[in-house]
Amino acid sequence: MAITTLQQLNDTVQGLLQEARTHVLAQMGTQLTVAQKTSRKDLVTNVDKSNEDFLVHGLRQLDPHAQILGEEGLGDNVTSMAGHVWIVDPIDGTMNFVHQRDHFAMMIGYYIDGEPTLGYIYDVMADRLFAGGPELGVTVNSKPLKAPADLALADGLFGASGPLLIHDRYAMQAIAHASLGPRIMGSAGIQISQVLAGELVGYLSYLRPWDFAAGRVLAETLGLVVSQVDGKPVNMLSSGAVLIATKSAQRAILTIVR
Amino acid sequence: MAITTLQQLNDTVQGLLQEARTHVLAQMGTQLTVAQKTSRKDLVTNVDKSNEDFLVHGLRQLDPHAQILGEEGLGDNVTSMAGHVWIVDPIDGTMNFVHQRDHFAMMIGYYIDGEPTLGYIYDVMADRLFAGGPELGVTVNSKPLKAPADLALADGLFGASGPLLIHDRYAMQAIAHASLGPRIMGSAGIQISQVLAGELVGYLSYLRPWDFAAGRVLAETLGLVVSQVDGKPVNMLSSGAVLIATKSAQRAILTIVR
Repeated sequence: MAITTLQQLNDTVQGLLQEARTHVLAQMGTQLTVAQKTSRKDLVTNVDKSNEDFLVHGLRQLDPHAQILGEEGLGDNVTSMAGHVWIVDPIDGTMNFVHQRDHFAMMIGYYIDGEPTLGYIYDVMADRLFAGGPELGVTVNSKPLKAPADLALADGLFGASGPLLIHDRYAMQAIAHASLGPRIMGSAGIQISQVLAGELVGYLSYLRPWDFAAGRVLAETLGLVVSQVDGKPVNMLSSGAVLIATKSAQRAILTIVR
Repeated sequence: MAITTLQQLNDTVQGLLQEARTHVLAQMGTQLTVAQKTSRKDLVTNVDKSNEDFLVHGLRQLDPHAQILGEEGLGDNVTSMAGHVWIVDPIDGTMNFVHQRDHFAMMIGYYIDGEPTLGYIYDVMADRLFAGGPELGVTVNSKPLKAPADLALADGLFGASGPLLIHDRYAMQAIAHASLGPRIMGSAGIQISQVLAGELVGYLSYLRPWDFAAGRVLAETLGLVVSQVDGKPVNMLSSGAVLIATKSAQRAILTIVR
C-alpha cells in the first residue's frame, strides 16, 4: 500500500496498533516470561519484546528509510532527530502489565526533522486510543478530542511518580499539595493520556524518550505544554524530568520548583 | 418480596446497586452541583446525596428494623453494632467522580451483631461489582473470585494514600519502598477492590467506617487480613489508619511500622 498523505499514514498506524493489541491480549492468556533489567523494579517480558518487534517491523514497511528508536533496542541506534524518526514503547507500565494485567499502554511518536508530527497512546485494557498531531488534530477512538480546559494547579488532580514523590525531587510534594491531590498510576502513557483527557491537570516524572515522545505530540496539539521542570524545551534523545501540564498549571509549578 | 435466605438478600442488593449505577450514569450527563465539606479537597455532590438517599431507601425496604449508617448522614445515627447494621458509601472517590468521571465506587457493608456478613464494592465505570461474604464466597459480576496468592510485600504493588505518603505517616514511605512501588488511585473502594483481585499486595490509608466496611467483609472472606497498623482489630464505628493486605505483606508491614 502506498502512503501518500498524513491522514493515510495515521489510519495505517492506528490499524497496526489495533493488530498489536490483539496479539498482546492473546499473549496475556499464556505464561509470561519476566526478567529484570536494571533492578527488581524494572522489568521486561517476552511480550514487550515481541510487541516491539511487531511494531518496528510494521513501521519499517510503512517508512523504509526512517530511523526507529525502541525501548527494548530492537530498532536503530538513533543519535540524531534528522529525517523521519519513530519512537516506540511497546508496553509502557510493564510492572502493571505483569502484576495487574491492566494500566499499561503502547506508544508511538513520529518526528520529521525534530518536528512533532504524529503521536499514539493506546490504553490497551480500556481500549482507548489517542491519536493524531498538529496537522490532523487529536482523536480518541477516531472521535475528535476537544482541548482540555486551562485549569489551574489548585483546581486539578496531579499525576506524580512514586520515587519522585517519596524522595521529594523537583518539589514534587509541594506541587502535589498545591493541587487537589496526587495520583500515581505507574505508567507514563496512562497518566499522560489522563492529562490529554482533562482528568489530570499535569504530570511530572523522570522520563526516557519513548515515555514522552508520543505524549509530547498529542499534548502540544491540544495546547498543553511539555517542558523540563525549569521551563526549558525537552530534548527527544535524552532522559530527564519532564512536565506535561496545562499552561496555568505549568506557570504555578515553575514558581514552586524555582 | 420476602427475603428468606442470605443468597436472596445478596441477589437483591446487587440488583439495587445495578439500578443505582443506572441513575448515577444518567446524572453524570447533567451539570453536577459540587460543594466543599471540610476543605477544598473534601467534596460532596448532588449525586452523592441522591444516591445515598436511593440506597438507604432501598435497604430500609429490604430490612426495616436495621440501622443504616451513611457517609452523607441520610441514614441513622448509629452508635452500636448490635443487630443488623448496613454501612453505605454512595460515591467513594468523589474527587475522582468530579474531576475524572472515573475511578469511583459505591460500597455497602452488612454486619449482624458486629459480624461481617455481606460486602459490595462496585467500580462504577469499569462495571465491576465485587459481592459476597463468608457464607457465600466472593463473586465479581456473579463469577466466583479466587482468593489472591499470599504474595510478600516485596513481590507486589502497594496501594497508598497521597497525604500519608507525602507526610510519611505510619512509615508509608518505607512500606512503599519495600514493595514493588506505590500506586495512588484516590478511592478506597477502587484500591481495596484491587487488593481483592490480587492487583495490589495491600492498601493502607486513614479511613472512615464507610470506606472499609464493605472491603473488610470481602477481604476477610478471601483470606486477606484487615487490621490497624499495629495489628489490632479494627473498630467499625471509628476512623483510623486501616491496613488491608495479604497475610505475608501484613507481617512485613507490622515489622516496618513497629
